[in-house]
Amino acid sequence: MSSTPTPETSARERLLALADEFYDQFDSGDVPTMELPTRTKTNIEYDEDERVWVYGDRTSTRSAKTVSGAQKLLKVIYTIDFLADQLDQDRSSTLRELYYLSESWELDPAQFTSQDESNQLIEDLEIVSDVRREEFHMRPEESGAKVMGPLRLREQTNRGDREIHCQHDVGQGGYQIPNDPDTIEFLDNDAAFVLCVETGGMRDRLVENGFDDEYDALVVHLGGQPARATRRLTKRLHDELGLEVVVFTDGDPWSYRIYGSVAYGSIKSAHLSKHLATPDAQFVGVQPEDIVEYDLPTDPLADSDINALQSELDDPRFQSDYWEEQIELQLEIDKKSEQQALASYGLDFVTDTYLPERLSAMGVV
Amino acid sequence: MSSTPTPETSARERLLALADEFYDQFDSGDVPTMELPTRTKTNIEYDEDERVWVYGDRTSTRSAKTVSGAQKLLKVIYTIDFLADQLDQDRSSTLRELYYLSESWELDPAQFTSQDESNQLIEDLEIVSDVRREEFHMRPEESGAKVMGPLRLREQTNRGDREIHCQHDVGQGGYQIPNDPDTIEFLDNDAAFVLCVETGGMRDRLVENGFDDEYDALVVHLGGQPARATRRLTKRLHDELGLEVVVFTDGDPWSYRIYGSVAYGSIKSAHLSKHLATPDAQFVGVQPEDIVEYDLPTDPLADSDINALQSELDDPRFQSDYWEEQIELQLEIDKKSEQQALASYGLDFVTDTYLPERLSAMGVV
Repeated sequence: MSSTPTPETSARERLLALADEFYDQFDSGDVPTMELPTRTKTNIEYDEDERVWVYGDRTSTRSAKTVSGAQKLLKVIYTIDFLADQLDQDRSSTLRELYYLSESWELDPAQFTSQDESNQLIEDLEIVSDVRREEFHMRPEESGAKVMGPLRLREQTNRGDREIHCQHDVGQGGYQIPNDPDTIEFLDNDAAFVLCVETGGMRDRLVENGFDDEYDALVVHLGGQPARATRRLTKRLHDELGLEVVVFTDGDPWSYRIYGSVAYGSIKSAHLSKHLATPDAQFVGVQPEDIVEYDLPTDPLADSDINALQSELDDPRFQSDYWEEQIELQLEIDKKSEQQALASYGLDFVTDTYLPERLSAMGVV
Repeated sequence: MSSTPTPETSARERLLALADEFYDQFDSGDVPTMELPTRTKTNIEYDEDERVWVYGDRTSTRSAKTVSGAQKLLKVIYTIDFLADQLDQDRSSTLRELYYLSESWELDPAQFTSQDESNQLIEDLEIVSDVRREEFHMRPEESGAKVMGPLRLREQTNRGDREIHCQHDVGQGGYQIPNDPDTIEFLDNDAAFVLCVETGGMRDRLVENGFDDEYDALVVHLGGQPARATRRLTKRLHDELGLEVVVFTDGDPWSYRIYGSVAYGSIKSAHLSKHLATPDAQFVGVQPEDIVEYDLPTDPLADSDINALQSELDDPRFQSDYWEEQIELQLEIDKKSEQQALASYGLDFVTDTYLPERLSAMGVV
């Protein structure tokens, strides 16, 4: 592709520039092509400036030389046309709706044959146009999680602006993060740091115990592998408000990946790392070291856990003294613990003892 | 068990009455026992008055005659003690926390050996004490979904009351239903009916298109199989505000079960049907009939779909002319459709055409 468009160019213009490029290729007698980075673990590399993992230099080419390649590019053109219209009308749609919508396109070969195909094409478009899906107004099926803490914000909804304080204006369930958190403006806050929490049970525990209030913490519920909206909001809280971000999960390899997706980004969306990842995010626990030091109730590691831990030792994102030490310790003790296992010392142990001890050792409080 | 306590008796007193009963059994020289309804599909029956499915007359007995039976009752006593304390202190906890908390109990045989065991015991306690888990202050791991529509409510949170209008005071994400929706008081509303929606993508579509505003609908997101909190809130909206409830899901057997759990209750929680089920709830679609009439994009039925449809034909909850007709039609056409398949006619088809046509045929609008 030609030079990257400036961030100021609107999403719509950047999409149409892509279509223009195909036109120019035709016009000069060339077979239209589209070049994409190869999206595998062997083609991600560390960007020293942004401190995130991004795609490397290896690329693969989609060309109209073959029938299937030409069909692929036809679908790209139809999708660009749909997205440009959608942006014109200030509408939005889900990935699944796009798949079904293609049934109404007049040219049969332009229609998607599976939802994997349309999902993949949108990711390709994000990469080559350098526009994020949210800027195309493509929504995910499920929205982000929720926030509780001393923050007042203004959200631009499609029925007007809403000013919401994430403690005083919400119920026990907190403030629901919208699909596109870039519609949020931060107004004022008394927050000391951001605490991202994996499970709903632990999130509710912290809120019931008033941890957000006592420590001026913004408690962000991740709800398992966090949605893009949740990761984006976390990054903005860090970058724009200068808040430290700590991540609190279960003590098993799957949960370390949750931390990894907050801090480093995922391989699947490495092209978005600089929008979604918070490289300064720290892991508060449950660390394998905590399992030993706090003598927590445990389960033995399953074979799949051991494989996942070993694969993390090979993962460039986990190549640090800290993670090597913790993962090797876990393989040695052959145990894992859930964050709610802290309740074996009573319902207040996590907020009275564990988090204050860990956060002060980390210099966060 | 002896006579059912009146609903006015507090949850704490009803739990302690259970423990008293064991004491009396000991005192009169009897081996303590606890009698529970048998919880299988063959032991649910239709309650004509409440119009919900409840457990039948078959019971099984837990007796302290055997060591394992005695241990079971010991765990019941310890759990009652913990719950009574929790209610005294106005605290709450999750099912998972209860499991881990039992590790701190001094008598080893009273500790739970698996989370299944503690979950099961809490369900047993709900049944014999006629107190719902929420009244014990036991929270689920994941909370209810969210509401958008013309309703102003007051929620009693553990940091004071909050008055929230479910359109004007919330972001695009809506109002997050708390774990215990009985902390909600309905203040005023302009709602015409309640529309429960299975998928997040469709919920967002209806909100973006302003369906809640144009039709004065309370849009309740179910998020797959609905949480107890969501079903409880739906039932209260129906019973207390006199609103019709319609359920909008994908057109496949798994989604009919989602409708079933809103309307009739589930076998697992048949003891709660009268608190959670809304027998008047109607199914708006996607009906097998709609797949034919609207010529929707489809997928063929998988073997597991066919089995599930056949099992629904045998399910007492689906024994009606309507469901027999629809399910037989679906087996005949051998197809299923997702609710977002309506997007094949454009993003506004669902709100401009499909829902208005179906709801007016049903007499709801």
